Amino acid sequence: QNTGIEKSSTDSTSSNKTPTIQGISDGSLSGLSERIDVNFLLRSSVDFPSGASNQASVNLNEARMELRGDVTPDLSFRIRYRLNRSFAQNSLDNAPGAVDHANLTYRFGTGKKWHLTAGKQSASVGSWEFDKNPTFEYQYTEYVNRQLNLFLLAMKLGYDVTENHTFQLQLHNTSNSNFNTIYNTTGYNTDGLRPSKTPFGLYVAWLGNLLDEKWQTFYSYNISQFARGKTDHAVSIGNQVVLDRFKAYLDLQSTNMSVDYPNIGSPAVNTFMAPTPGFTPVFLQDINYKTAVLRVDYEFIPKWFVTAKGFYETASHRKDSEIGDNFREHTGLLAGLEYKPIASQEMRLFSYYYYNTSQYNNAVGVSNPNQKLHLFSVGVLYFVNAL
Amino acid sequence: QNTGIEKSSTDSTSSNKTPTIQGISDGSLSGLSERIDVNFLLRSSVDFPSGASNQASVNLNEARMELRGDVTPDLSFRIRYRLNRSFAQNSLDNAPGAVDHANLTYRFGTGKKWHLTAGKQSASVGSWEFDKNPTFEYQYTEYVNRQLNLFLLAMKLGYDVTENHTFQLQLHNTSNSNFNTIYNTTGYNTDGLRPSKTPFGLYVAWLGNLLDEKWQTFYSYNISQFARGKTDHAVSIGNQVVLDRFKAYLDLQSTNMSVDYPNIGSPAVNTFMAPTPGFTPVFLQDINYKTAVLRVDYEFIPKWFVTAKGFYETASHRKDSEIGDNFREHTGLLAGLEYKPIASQEMRLFSYYYYNTSQYNNAVGVSNPNQKLHLFSVGVLYFVNAL
Amino acid sequence: QNTGIEKSSTDSTSSNKTPTIQGISDGSLSGLSERIDVNFLLRSSVDFPSGASNQASVNLNEARMELRGDVTPDLSFRIRYRLNRSFAQNSLDNAPGAVDHANLTYRFGTGKKWHLTAGKQSASVGSWEFDKNPTFEYQYTEYVNRQLNLFLLAMKLGYDVTENHTFQLQLHNTSNSNFNTIYNTTGYNTDGLRPSKTPFGLYVAWLGNLLDEKWQTFYSYNISQFARGKTDHAVSIGNQVVLDRFKAYLDLQSTNMSVDYPNIGSPAVNTFMAPTPGFTPVFLQDINYKTAVLRVDYEFIPKWFVTAKGFYETASHRKDSEIGDNFREHTGLLAGLEYKPIASQEMRLFSYYYYNTSQYNNAVGVSNPNQKLHLFSVGVLYFVNAL
Repeated sequence: QNTGIEKSSTDSTSSNKTPTIQGISDGSLSGLSERIDVNFLLRSSVDFPSGASNQASVNLNEARMELRGDVTPDLSFRIRYRLNRSFAQNSLDNAPGAVDHANLTYRFGTGKKWHLTAGKQSASVGSWEFDKNPTFEYQYTEYVNRQLNLFLLAMKLGYDVTENHTFQLQLHNTSNSNFNTIYNTTGYNTDGLRPSKTPFGLYVAWLGNLLDEKWQTFYSYNISQFARGKTDHAVSIGNQVVLDRFKAYLDLQSTNMSVDYPNIGSPAVNTFMAPTPGFTPVFLQDINYKTAVLRVDYEFIPKWFVTAKGFYETASHRKDSEIGDNFREHTGLLAGLEYKPIASQEMRLFSYYYYNTSQYNNAVGVSNPNQKLHLFSVGVLYFVNAL
Repeated sequence: QNTGIEKSSTDSTSSNKTPTIQGISDGSLSGLSERIDVNFLLRSSVDFPSGASNQASVNLNEARMELRGDVTPDLSFRIRYRLNRSFAQNSLDNAPGAVDHANLTYRFGTGKKWHLTAGKQSASVGSWEFDKNPTFEYQYTEYVNRQLNLFLLAMKLGYDVTENHTFQLQLHNTSNSNFNTIYNTTGYNTDGLRPSKTPFGLYVAWLGNLLDEKWQTFYSYNISQFARGKTDHAVSIGNQVVLDRFKAYLDLQSTNMSVDYPNIGSPAVNTFMAPTPGFTPVFLQDINYKTAVLRVDYEFIPKWFVTAKGFYETASHRKDSEIGDNFREHTGLLAGLEYKPIASQEMRLFSYYYYNTSQYNNAVGVSNPNQKLHLFSVGVLYFVNAL
Repeated sequence: QNTGIEKSSTDSTSSNKTPTIQGISDGSLSGLSERIDVNFLLRSSVDFPSGASNQASVNLNEARMELRGDVTPDLSFRIRYRLNRSFAQNSLDNAPGAVDHANLTYRFGTGKKWHLTAGKQSASVGSWEFDKNPTFEYQYTEYVNRQLNLFLLAMKLGYDVTENHTFQLQLHNTSNSNFNTIYNTTGYNTDGLRPSKTPFGLYVAWLGNLLDEKWQTFYSYNISQFARGKTDHAVSIGNQVVLDRFKAYLDLQSTNMSVDYPNIGSPAVNTFMAPTPGFTPVFLQDINYKTAVLRVDYEFIPKWFVTAKGFYETASHRKDSEIGDNFREHTGLLAGLEYKPIASQEMRLFSYYYYNTSQYNNAVGVSNPNQKLHLFSVGVLYFVNAL
């Protein structure tokens, strides 16, 4: 029975719910370990990548500290930061990339069905891939890794319709850096675009438990603005199945970006356009990104797990038929084996193989060679609940 | 009754006093929460600044972690650091800007009236504005924000004359970066100045409680050296009134800086002098800074507070009558409303309006346009005592 | 009796042993302070260095946080990081210089005699100087400070032959940055060298307790690779004597480096070669480093300690007889006095004098002037066991 994984493996959504412990006798030491969690997230592996310029290495893949607590039944806080990122603050939000969470949640109203979360927090995006605790997710789609603004300053309002259905509204910064910083980093021409006066976005999300919590839904819609007068739209549909010894998620998403500030598709188009006289690199406008990702975990004999993950992602630029649909395709396949020697502890020895390719099509394909990566990895992960 | 604010709102001065808990049974777990404090300081708001180049944003205004404890009745330690500053060390003191406190306090002598604090600590400067815990102070004067070296490496010797009167001597680094780094950062010409061999300063301070702790004084004098043979002098007079539902401070200061290494007044003078043939930018010598700042807090109905703050600051250069008195004036006005829903927790929802202007006068006024900022902010703050 | 120092002063080796507490009742709060250690390492001093360009300062010499615990009898974790280093990750191992330890140790096999340590950890190098907790070691040899890769990503396998004898095998990254980053940082020419595809090293170490733990051995051999086809070899022989009021270590080492990527000896040779037409700076190939270091501590009257340390280090380049043996000599001498006022606490007031010189001989001596440093220091150190 893999109940051990359930508590720690879902990450962001769990903090939206009402506190597990209702009867907190304030200040009483007997409840210390119930009131507070101190966690340490560790994953370290020996990685052997293919490619002429890649060196094998032992890596600190994940190292994050977490402190969270229920101070009163109405009020909780959460802090989580990475030990391997700079703590220098970003230009727009005054928060560093190292900090995932620095927020408080206040519950109010009849039956404490409403909650407000303020501070740095995870995006309310319908992605079970992102929702999984990073200790346990070896390789990510570009959707999670590069396209989304995962951890952002926001004010989130949630409402528990029933115990199994929650709705969320999240007002957030579109990007954590300001307009000028992003253009200075890439060196791109602004192409006549101006910074939005209110570079905000809004997530609308539904989190549901169906069929006795065996089927979990996380659906979201996002509207946001980066440049003045330019609006982005995104839909994410996440479904997860959790059985006794089997777990799987399937996430689907489609995003229309008026300005490609995540800069995933633009470099290939800029390379293609470079020979044009007078051309300067820009963020592509009116780009569409799509992702489908599936992960399956199965405990085939007690303590032993197989895991498999596959994803397919596309970038399209329909306005320009020469560049056109699916001008960039990004594919990944992962197959791994895990061994969990101690039943009570989320410590696993693992090994996996990962294959990843970026392929360029249509006009863009000529000037952009396809890219491939093979990676073999063997290591250990541990979600430590220190307190 | 706003007694809740008292414990956490005074920040730096509280650590100078003898420990609140005298009977520590060493190592006994029953005293854990009495022996140790784990605090998390959070303030996050949606800020709407005026100005063509400013973008509105949700901000992580404050995010600091604190760990402090009384290990024995004679010995305590304090660590506090920001989660949104780089931890790279400064050039002179080997400590980063992210760390506010990393120190120990040792109490000794008859009745433990003497104390020695070593390590990174807050300056013993007579400023109630600075002494207020940063969770609760929305906007600062330039005196606190730019002129003072707030957190510095020092050795501080204190003596409690009575329970209500403490004197302090604090030997400290004048600046946290060395002479050459500061000049390299600005790119200014040294103008014949050389680094001090002993770039130290000394604070002499009196902390007093008068009229049954209703009137609190924090007066300080500072002498320090940045460049060889050049001495700075500063006087700060801080007064605070604490009543049942009313609190106010009034801080006054005057500083004679032989070299303007805080670089507040110099840029305007350098801009003014720029057209002079052969001129290279320098730190202005013999500058005087003055500040007056008043803040008032009042709980007008239970759980609801109004707060107002105003300050007026000047820079003068009397040696050169063309530049002269008050060539730079810096003014700020803040009015805000706070709601504290849970009596036992220092969590507040707030909203404020802030107006700020820098005005240039005399000869300097011609080449330096005045600057204005309007800011509207709505957010939440929380001083979390996690343990 | 100086038993207080024993627990905290040995640093890295202590974590290799089986847990001190075997009977852990899992999750029981009564055992919290037995299961978990929260430590804060602090050293701060006023330092007066000699030399025209040096400025005296109060320094934060050491500020490190540590969290370690035995989660179950089989599984423990350790995190330690510096508060005064950047947390930006290095190019090869994805871990920052700020993090010393981020690892887990898993004990297994009959009698739990085997242990596996994964993650960032200390090198299994036979150096008592490095093994001493950094709180208590004022000045280091270049061997520890610059030549060794002290904290590295590794997988370590250990076996306790008896209670007093442990053998260790540690597979580790040779360097924490990749080949290209190191060359880019120095700006040196690669001189035809290529990055190793597997830039790994292996430590083989023996840790022994002889004569009723009065004589402690730490001997190690290391083989590693930085550039393709170039192998480095190192032998370290560490001996330590621990008596009731007396403690001393003597470490000896010899290293043959095929490429001098620590860049200790190369700058002097590059300076010497600079006038040669067409010469570009490179890492010297085939260099030998040797170190002898002795430290003695003695509690001459209760609470008062004298400490003395001396070291002598050489760099040789036998392939080129013009540069030759001992072309660089590095010598250090330290004499200090410590006072430990509270018997139960590892807090010490200290003062020491340190003399350090780098001398260049043979052909290299002409173009490289000798360098000297005198340093006087007075300060305080504290190893705080907060929990």
